[in-house]
Amino acid sequence: MNEQTIGIIGGLGIMGRAFTQLFQEDNLQVLCSDINTELTNQELVRQSDIIIISVPIDQTIPVIQEIGEALTEKQLLMDFTSIKTEPIEAMLQTKADVIGMHPMFSPPMDSLTNQTIVLTPIRDRRGWLSLVLDYFQKKGFKLQITSPERHDEIMGLIQVLIHFNLMTLGITLSRLEIDLSEALEYTSPTFQIELDLIGRIFTQSSELYGTIPMRNPFTRQILEQHTKTLDTLREIILKKDSESFKELFEKTSDYFQPFKTKALAESSYLFSQLVEFNGKQ
Amino acid sequence: MNEQTIGIIGGLGIMGRAFTQLFQEDNLQVLCSDINTELTNQELVRQSDIIIISVPIDQTIPVIQEIGEALTEKQLLMDFTSIKTEPIEAMLQTKADVIGMHPMFSPPMDSLTNQTIVLTPIRDRRGWLSLVLDYFQKKGFKLQITSPERHDEIMGLIQVLIHFNLMTLGITLSRLEIDLSEALEYTSPTFQIELDLIGRIFTQSSELYGTIPMRNPFTRQILEQHTKTLDTLREIILKKDSESFKELFEKTSDYFQPFKTKALAESSYLFSQLVEFNGKQ
Repeated sequence: MNEQTIGIIGGLGIMGRAFTQLFQEDNLQVLCSDINTELTNQELVRQSDIIIISVPIDQTIPVIQEIGEALTEKQLLMDFTSIKTEPIEAMLQTKADVIGMHPMFSPPMDSLTNQTIVLTPIRDRRGWLSLVLDYFQKKGFKLQITSPERHDEIMGLIQVLIHFNLMTLGITLSRLEIDLSEALEYTSPTFQIELDLIGRIFTQSSELYGTIPMRNPFTRQILEQHTKTLDTLREIILKKDSESFKELFEKTSDYFQPFKTKALAESSYLFSQLVEFNGKQ
Repeated sequence: MNEQTIGIIGGLGIMGRAFTQLFQEDNLQVLCSDINTELTNQELVRQSDIIIISVPIDQTIPVIQEIGEALTEKQLLMDFTSIKTEPIEAMLQTKADVIGMHPMFSPPMDSLTNQTIVLTPIRDRRGWLSLVLDYFQKKGFKLQITSPERHDEIMGLIQVLIHFNLMTLGITLSRLEIDLSEALEYTSPTFQIELDLIGRIFTQSSELYGTIPMRNPFTRQILEQHTKTLDTLREIILKKDSESFKELFEKTSDYFQPFKTKALAESSYLFSQLVEFNGKQ
């Protein structure tokens, strides 16, 4: 992408800054527009070959509509939105080539490399995809290519189910008025890691964590199965129905079978790293 | 504890073996009895100064009753049970001194040191506690002393709420028939860690994970609050009620305020360690 100018709309946000820095380290030409920049979105579009939209989810489609007329078929339009079906549809209304993108991480992070980026290439008359793949692969990212619909279905698990679950835990702890500092004195590694993940979510923007599940087309179906499962498990435990518990546990255990060795090795490694981190504090 | 003989009932189990090894590294005298050992529990009690019961939760009270008559006031009786109120009551029926114990980890682990052990000393006419504290502190363990009731209340969070939540997630994933290997290709660090913790639970015994919540006296109260919270959050998301979501999120965010810096630093560290671990595979 050495000869291209990359314009990031929303370039002063957390993701915008992280990718600006990444591109600048490689001496790529980067332009940024944001709410308070002198450069307008329209001007950025005129001066860029690749335009990346890095704005809050609810702003993505309005921004696409705002710049839509100015885009030409010589340009590549990308976005960082955590939902892909809707933004891709909007981007296809422009004349530009379109590759949706979803970086599966949120800064601050010690390193961006080795992290996963999902790409949903949709219209690529000029062969942008190989340029993009080549650049990010060289930077050490793990790249996944899929359709916008399949992306949203898998994110239904990763971003809806998992985050919903962690948020529920966090809200429950706050409602039970637990003294976190006391509870942490008694911590198990699992509890400590869960609190870290919950605490991390609640340092971030409510906008992000609310909009993703509200916009993902698979949310209702996933949350309904989750609630049904939770009700079943709760009843089994409250009734002290050891037989049903054992049956359900062993069935799930079978499902995790292919993943068990990795889960055990990886969690044991994380536990020991946690101990090391605590030792450093 | 150098001059004492330590007898571990259930010494061939996972915890029994881990502590036998620990004690033997220090050349302490250790005896083990288990279902298939020649040494019986009664014989072990006759030959030991400190008796540690390391058996499944539902076996703890029967074992205490079995050896109760044989114990004298010169001996120290300990246990490793994850619930403390009930076993402590049973141990107090014997003549021995009583210090309940709960190691907050389950092998396999790279290292036992720096891990937390909770102690609930109840009857200590002979000053055993200082011996026990001294030994485990020198080994690098983190020791917490509390009452059996407070132990069970805090474990209601750490072992009931957190494990219940992870098991619910695991069962939901299996019911949605998710292809784990495909989902992992798209993973975020949070998803990967959650899967590791879930997978770790389901490699262990259904007996342990069923009996703890069924026996903990705070289970009903905690799970009721959890279900209420989950229903509230699900309704807010399905109704796309951004205002209520924001309010709930920010209230919880305030609750996590004192813990945020640590949560962010520790989770970022774990994420980078995960990347390193993946790189080694």
